[in-house]
Amino acid sequence: MVLGEYLPFWNKLTEKQRMLLKEKAREARFEKGMLVHGGVDGCSGLLLVTAGQLRVFMLSDEGRELTLYRLLERDICLFSGPCMVKNIQFDVTVEAEQDSVVSVIPPEVYKTLMEQSAVVSNFTNELMASRFSDVMWLMDQVLNKKMDGRLAAFLLEEGRLNGSKELSITHEQIAHHLGTAREVVTRLLRLFQADHLVKITRGSVELLDERGLELLAADSLR
Amino acid sequence: MVLGEYLPFWNKLTEKQRMLLKEKAREARFEKGMLVHGGVDGCSGLLLVTAGQLRVFMLSDEGRELTLYRLLERDICLFSGPCMVKNIQFDVTVEAEQDSVVSVIPPEVYKTLMEQSAVVSNFTNELMASRFSDVMWLMDQVLNKKMDGRLAAFLLEEGRLNGSKELSITHEQIAHHLGTAREVVTRLLRLFQADHLVKITRGSVELLDERGLELLAADSLR
Repeated sequence: MVLGEYLPFWNKLTEKQRMLLKEKAREARFEKGMLVHGGVDGCSGLLLVTAGQLRVFMLSDEGRELTLYRLLERDICLFSGPCMVKNIQFDVTVEAEQDSVVSVIPPEVYKTLMEQSAVVSNFTNELMASRFSDVMWLMDQVLNKKMDGRLAAFLLEEGRLNGSKELSITHEQIAHHLGTAREVVTRLLRLFQADHLVKITRGSVELLDERGLELLAADSLR
Repeated sequence: MVLGEYLPFWNKLTEKQRMLLKEKAREARFEKGMLVHGGVDGCSGLLLVTAGQLRVFMLSDEGRELTLYRLLERDICLFSGPCMVKNIQFDVTVEAEQDSVVSVIPPEVYKTLMEQSAVVSNFTNELMASRFSDVMWLMDQVLNKKMDGRLAAFLLEEGRLNGSKELSITHEQIAHHLGTAREVVTRLLRLFQADHLVKITRGSVELLDERGLELLAADSLR
């Protein structure tokens, strides 16, 4: 495992701290669709994505989902270890969107490093600030932007992430990303199809007019 | 100014760091309704509330407001100093809800302390985690809870904060707290009045049946 390549503070650690990390971090593999963190597990630790793609989402009591952000290669998941930082009183669910490889740093190890090193602690601050910014952006989207623009932006983002205009995704899955009901997604996709923006087939959505989707998505593109 | 009483990390600072804080922190007074932070100001610094009450809210491009949280005596406002923490890419607006006294620690001073001291940096982590938790709770409310329950919870909270059942607040102000339109608030308050939960008069709402409001608010009380 090449932790040094992924952790920006590696060179600021003492030899002893590096040894601790090397000794305690373990690699975990998740197949597409598997749960990486969530539910009763509590505190999984810091997750460092070395391959694949994870989805971090909120799950309401009523079973509604909302994608908060995606973690790609080199991204770090902080909220899989709520016990690492005092005062985190919420939990997120993390699942593998692609077959993924993750380095897991146990919570007590990371916590120790944060207490010993202002550099690690400030890195944690920046990480949290970055995710907080994502969530604030999303809050603005949920409150103030129209669902058709959000859907258009989501389709474009999916196309970019997958490098394809043919998205293998169900209406239900899209609804879970956007925090809305499947019926809403189906209705909007039909409108998009009528406007020749997409073509809907069973279990997939094909992007026909990316420029048209971009115009619609203007307020919801990051 | 008695910074030592308000900053939990005071005793962990060096004499030099304490001197720096004492020298650079300044006291500011804000009358009820005044803007404390927001707009073009950029980075006001860390705000420590020593008296009064502040409201921290999101302001959308379209002018819609949503109260994120309130800061009471001894609370600390971190996001009034986005420049202090790298990666904060959102801005909040802060206004005085009561006549308030605030100690302002300049951003560069606080940033220096965070870089020097793991204790200060970890304190910042906990502070951010706490606000992040507030916002995640709010996101769940906005997405998954009914507006009537949220309104009932808000009225009860206002009653507690003000120590009174007679709230001097307009429908517009309530709408700004809840991130909705004034018409929605007016419609719901009329329903509440028909159920003898509240009595509406011009510019005020009187709580008649707190137990009834609590039942309605069950999913939205913290």
